[in-house]
Amino acid sequence: MIYADYNGSAPLLPAVREYMKTRLESDLFANPNAIHTMGQRLTKGINRCREIISEIVGCHPDQLYFNSGSSEGVSHIIHSVLGSAPANKKVIITSPIEHAVVPAALDFYAKKQGLVIKHVEIDSEGRVKIASLEKLLEENKDKIALVSIMAANNETGVLQPYQEMSKLCQKYQVDFFSDTTQLIGKGDFNFAESGVDYAVCSGHKLGSLTGIGFIIAKEPTKLLPLVFGSTQEKGIRGGTMHYLGIETLAIAFKDFQENQHRLADLKKARLNFEAEIKKAFPNVAIIGEKAPRLAGTTLIGYPGIHGQAAQIELESQDIFVTTSAACSDNQPETSKVLKAMGVDDHIGRSVIRISLSYSHGQQEYSALAQGLKAAYTKLNKIQSY
Amino acid sequence: MIYADYNGSAPLLPAVREYMKTRLESDLFANPNAIHTMGQRLTKGINRCREIISEIVGCHPDQLYFNSGSSEGVSHIIHSVLGSAPANKKVIITSPIEHAVVPAALDFYAKKQGLVIKHVEIDSEGRVKIASLEKLLEENKDKIALVSIMAANNETGVLQPYQEMSKLCQKYQVDFFSDTTQLIGKGDFNFAESGVDYAVCSGHKLGSLTGIGFIIAKEPTKLLPLVFGSTQEKGIRGGTMHYLGIETLAIAFKDFQENQHRLADLKKARLNFEAEIKKAFPNVAIIGEKAPRLAGTTLIGYPGIHGQAAQIELESQDIFVTTSAACSDNQPETSKVLKAMGVDDHIGRSVIRISLSYSHGQQEYSALAQGLKAAYTKLNKIQSY
Repeated sequence: MIYADYNGSAPLLPAVREYMKTRLESDLFANPNAIHTMGQRLTKGINRCREIISEIVGCHPDQLYFNSGSSEGVSHIIHSVLGSAPANKKVIITSPIEHAVVPAALDFYAKKQGLVIKHVEIDSEGRVKIASLEKLLEENKDKIALVSIMAANNETGVLQPYQEMSKLCQKYQVDFFSDTTQLIGKGDFNFAESGVDYAVCSGHKLGSLTGIGFIIAKEPTKLLPLVFGSTQEKGIRGGTMHYLGIETLAIAFKDFQENQHRLADLKKARLNFEAEIKKAFPNVAIIGEKAPRLAGTTLIGYPGIHGQAAQIELESQDIFVTTSAACSDNQPETSKVLKAMGVDDHIGRSVIRISLSYSHGQQEYSALAQGLKAAYTKLNKIQSY
Repeated sequence: MIYADYNGSAPLLPAVREYMKTRLESDLFANPNAIHTMGQRLTKGINRCREIISEIVGCHPDQLYFNSGSSEGVSHIIHSVLGSAPANKKVIITSPIEHAVVPAALDFYAKKQGLVIKHVEIDSEGRVKIASLEKLLEENKDKIALVSIMAANNETGVLQPYQEMSKLCQKYQVDFFSDTTQLIGKGDFNFAESGVDYAVCSGHKLGSLTGIGFIIAKEPTKLLPLVFGSTQEKGIRGGTMHYLGIETLAIAFKDFQENQHRLADLKKARLNFEAEIKKAFPNVAIIGEKAPRLAGTTLIGYPGIHGQAAQIELESQDIFVTTSAACSDNQPETSKVLKAMGVDDHIGRSVIRISLSYSHGQQEYSALAQGLKAAYTKLNKIQSY
């Protein structure tokens, strides 16, 4: 089996499985907020995990707050920034290629508070046009409540110029939230150096237990609570801590740190794979081909062969890919991201997303090339549109 | 070791540990929202778990939505009901004995929307006075946005008359949310029969993995999203599902169902334990002694012996209890719950909470009696206040 849907979710890392096997034998289960030493030991463990992760993502431990994952993180940040925005800040700037949670949360608060949402332009390679952001910042000067633009796209893997966007937002003194869900654990990211005000992470994308993640905030005191509680996470996020998730997240981050150097080989193998497919099928399109992308992400389409047909054909070979993002509508049509890039329906309907992690390399891509060539050869005879 | 802090958090159930050992060997890890069969298999599993749990708690599967736990559930329900309340509904009715998350969330939205919070009275045994609720409902007729009163108290274990409260709320056509966190998995609860409009659950209180829980809503379409996302949980709760948590929660519920009959023995053993302590130390007070309580909860105090001193002394005997709720301030003073009951500081500062589960019985209570008698005998010589 080749599981090639790491942008959707990563399987539990081997290191996490080993940890959990031992952890299940332990007696240390309690409420970390309890007064007794069992609770206190768990709290110490949580804070040690916070330190480990903070060091790897380049933030201060006081800037990192655990939660249930990125959807909560995105909702929390947008709730906080828009919920406390001064009355004269009526404009939100975002992009048309965000993960579904971002427009859903922005629309809700925009409608509630009478805010206007404006979108930056995307170039044909899937990157935010910096000039477009600058124009919107200038045109709406002193009226902007929030800029919310992602750091790496979930469908295409295209890396966004978040550092440049940060600098522009700082120049215009506007809060900048960058959805880093797909970047953290898959590429270089350092919160302090990034210049962004808010970032988010979902542990399951890195191979920890499910149901865990965090937000990072440059100035956490600006956050309003979304999930209320008592003193947990300094009042910023209530609820009994998901300490098993947190412990495995620290393990996943250590695993990432130890293996991050392998991303270069992953990228090389991915580029070889893409070249091999293109050589065999010159009609094939690689989305965002000329843009910098996540090391292990390819969004590839063979016009005339429906993405879903290719996905099913690959699955019959025990290879698991998706057609677009898991959280898109899974509709058999061109995704919003591709539409924003100006991708033609003929290509848009044909794409499949292949996403691997730093634990993979040439071996997996060779098998993927063989599988995809067989699928395309077979399906080419019965083109579906 | 005797871990007697089940109202704080339960250790992983043996059945959950066994399940996880096997689960860790599996290859079935993916995004349940993915188009491929791995995702679809996980979604089927989630829905099977939803059916199992719904049957046990007496709701329709379409009324149950998974989330990260009760703090999120409480926040979500209050956000939804108050966020969509008509402008003329300006009154919230609650109690002074709620878990910290309830007043925190109510205060936030009350302040934001200019609502008034009114409190029902509590009798000396820790029960809501039904007449007090009826009076508030009558006095504020047609102006009430929400009634939020718990089903079982976390500190005292005292069961609240939630069925009677439901009937009153129905009579006055007011939404009734009852925080069922301490009741579900520890006592009889059937959503359909309860008459409440909203209920919540935290899996870690039942011995599942941490970071999982759910809300039940009589009419889910009334819920606004708090954590946004795409199509997960019908748009009511976004975010990649914490499927490992959900699977273990179904196991915990089945374990509860199979062992619920043991609660009668637990209660009997608890009453013997309380009688034994009172016989040895006639000054001892059992909080809510005359009220119906959770089978395994005792809040007990020896005036003059500080609760924290007793807790530490017991811990030296490898017995883990708390002074009040884990989520209270852990301050060495009378808790808000006890103040609302009119409990004197002399008793209030002395209490410890002993909470066990259906897996326990006479054996644990005998050991607890022995331990507590030794602690009180020792500490009585050096009374701390």
